[in-house]
Amino acid sequence: MKVDGRHFRSIWLEPDGWSVGAIDQRRLPHDFVVARLTTGDAAVDAIRSMLVRGAPLIGATAAYGMALAMRADGSDAALDRAYKSLIAARPTAINLKWALDEMRSLLRPLPPAARAEAAYSRAGAIAEDDIAINQGIGRHGLALIESVAAAKKPGERVNVLTHCNAGWLATVDWGTATAPIYLAHDRGHAIHVWVDETRPRNQGASLTAWELGHHGVPHTVIPDNTGGHLMQHGMVDLVIVGTDRVTANGDVCNKIGTYLKALAAHDNGVPFYVALPSPTIDFTVDDGIREIPIEQRGPEEVSHMTGRTSDGRIETVRIVPDGSPVANYAFDVTPARLVTGLITERGVLKADRAALAAAFPERIAAAAE
Amino acid sequence: MKVDGRHFRSIWLEPDGWSVGAIDQRRLPHDFVVARLTTGDAAVDAIRSMLVRGAPLIGATAAYGMALAMRADGSDAALDRAYKSLIAARPTAINLKWALDEMRSLLRPLPPAARAEAAYSRAGAIAEDDIAINQGIGRHGLALIESVAAAKKPGERVNVLTHCNAGWLATVDWGTATAPIYLAHDRGHAIHVWVDETRPRNQGASLTAWELGHHGVPHTVIPDNTGGHLMQHGMVDLVIVGTDRVTANGDVCNKIGTYLKALAAHDNGVPFYVALPSPTIDFTVDDGIREIPIEQRGPEEVSHMTGRTSDGRIETVRIVPDGSPVANYAFDVTPARLVTGLITERGVLKADRAALAAAFPERIAAAAE
Repeated sequence: MKVDGRHFRSIWLEPDGWSVGAIDQRRLPHDFVVARLTTGDAAVDAIRSMLVRGAPLIGATAAYGMALAMRADGSDAALDRAYKSLIAARPTAINLKWALDEMRSLLRPLPPAARAEAAYSRAGAIAEDDIAINQGIGRHGLALIESVAAAKKPGERVNVLTHCNAGWLATVDWGTATAPIYLAHDRGHAIHVWVDETRPRNQGASLTAWELGHHGVPHTVIPDNTGGHLMQHGMVDLVIVGTDRVTANGDVCNKIGTYLKALAAHDNGVPFYVALPSPTIDFTVDDGIREIPIEQRGPEEVSHMTGRTSDGRIETVRIVPDGSPVANYAFDVTPARLVTGLITERGVLKADRAALAAAFPERIAAAAE
Repeated sequence: MKVDGRHFRSIWLEPDGWSVGAIDQRRLPHDFVVARLTTGDAAVDAIRSMLVRGAPLIGATAAYGMALAMRADGSDAALDRAYKSLIAARPTAINLKWALDEMRSLLRPLPPAARAEAAYSRAGAIAEDDIAINQGIGRHGLALIESVAAAKKPGERVNVLTHCNAGWLATVDWGTATAPIYLAHDRGHAIHVWVDETRPRNQGASLTAWELGHHGVPHTVIPDNTGGHLMQHGMVDLVIVGTDRVTANGDVCNKIGTYLKALAAHDNGVPFYVALPSPTIDFTVDDGIREIPIEQRGPEEVSHMTGRTSDGRIETVRIVPDGSPVANYAFDVTPARLVTGLITERGVLKADRAALAAAFPERIAAAAE
């Protein structure tokens, strides 16, 4: 999407034909900085340190990481090493495993000398596929927004609430939850987005607000505590969030706090949609609450906050008293019963086993193998 | 309660017999600073700027503010002026109006020269009454904690989740939601408190964590997004929050985000209690969601964050992109159907009209007048 009028993706092959460019998302929203990745280990670091984040972008970065590793050393040992270190970089993201399995099963049968070229080609295709999938999500989600807009008075805005960043920065382009929003906005619909700031890492305030603002989409940043009040007062027409993993039953693992918004939507009759590319569905898992391990991250994400001082310096401040312990669970699971629909590239599906199995029969077959 | 081993209240009459001391809560948790209020206008400023906050403490501060104003000028005009400016300092707090009405109806019939002394005496009594009420809340809430503890294995902790600061800093001493916690802890029960950080003003992280830590109560600070996940996994035994206003129907107006925790508690079978001194009940209001006006506060509370840098300076940083609007609703309303019980100084009551009317018949009669 657009940054200061110029089109960007979140990750790309540099003009040198081998190094990989990516927006350093840790520096947003205050600095727009591009990183250049030149090794497989750099890709591991980029994923682990959250220079890149978002399930689809993590998958694309891992694929390019395999290509960078194969360029340095195409051996079986190097392939295994790269797979192992990349998959350990973030434990919860299902796209990471999906992309790495794709890459490994492609590369393993090839002679070592042919692996780098094949890896770059497949990584590029994964990135293009992500964009095509998101555009599909956008078209299916657009229909939902247009049906809300049709019930409004002329000029009245459609209010969408979103949590975390499932925007173009979380994917290669367009985003998942934001694809319908960008499409509606670009087609001239009056749309406004309530952006949950999304503590503790503030991906909503720092990334979603930044990308919506740079693309020109009206939005308002709110504390995560606010959405229930807005829904009680009819100020939210629909919720659209992304997800890191959807189970075969339709349970949704997403950024911590998503479950609370789903409860509020349910309590107030507000439709709650989850936008996802189909690789995000994990047909090997049924009960999300019991089966998905939830990543715990470092305490400093909760105890400290980084921002820009009035004189332009980036500064980190402690906001919790010395000596007070903190806990930092990165995700929660929203049970399928609270989900109005899953917006996928194959249409808007009910969040249940039968609907998912009918839409993705080939995935069910593969999971059973 | 205790600060570094020494007993403090949140507000007190200084040894000079007329000026009023108060802990400057804007400086916590990084600096412990005491303010000295010497005029009625200083009390207005203290309430408006949130040097003092919390419904009961606001009431006590307003009462002392009337005393300070009467000391300077005991005339009818001064009485009306002090009432007007104090009541406008925070629009939502019901205790503010209650304390000011008490003071005005006491002072109005007195000759101007007698008003200051009577005002100080009544303000002192309001402070003492608050402490007695909170101790009553503590005893009734303790029974709830003890019944949870009785079902645990020996040594296993009772886990309480709380939102915002309904601690001793929000009252004159003991707190409302914290009174049962302090009492249980002081009696040797193993208790642990999950402290919601409570964006945007972080009263949980900066005040509740500070006061629990200084009194020695085990606790963990969590982002506001976390409570639902903890409840799904059996990590919360009960929720106890405070409130700024309870309606005659039992609807609970409290810090923004309380409603989301009540929904999660309901969805997971976790008891959700609200601790309150009875002046917090507003028998003139029925439907909290429709009738209670919700204060909107300044955008900088959302867009900026204040904390301590690694070299000890207090610094404020911007965390929202330039140009992104923010919204800052201070409270939300939890409908009575989600409330397990109201812990008052007269016992634990069902959150409904009949139970409240039975427990406070004199208030019902007064509201009907």
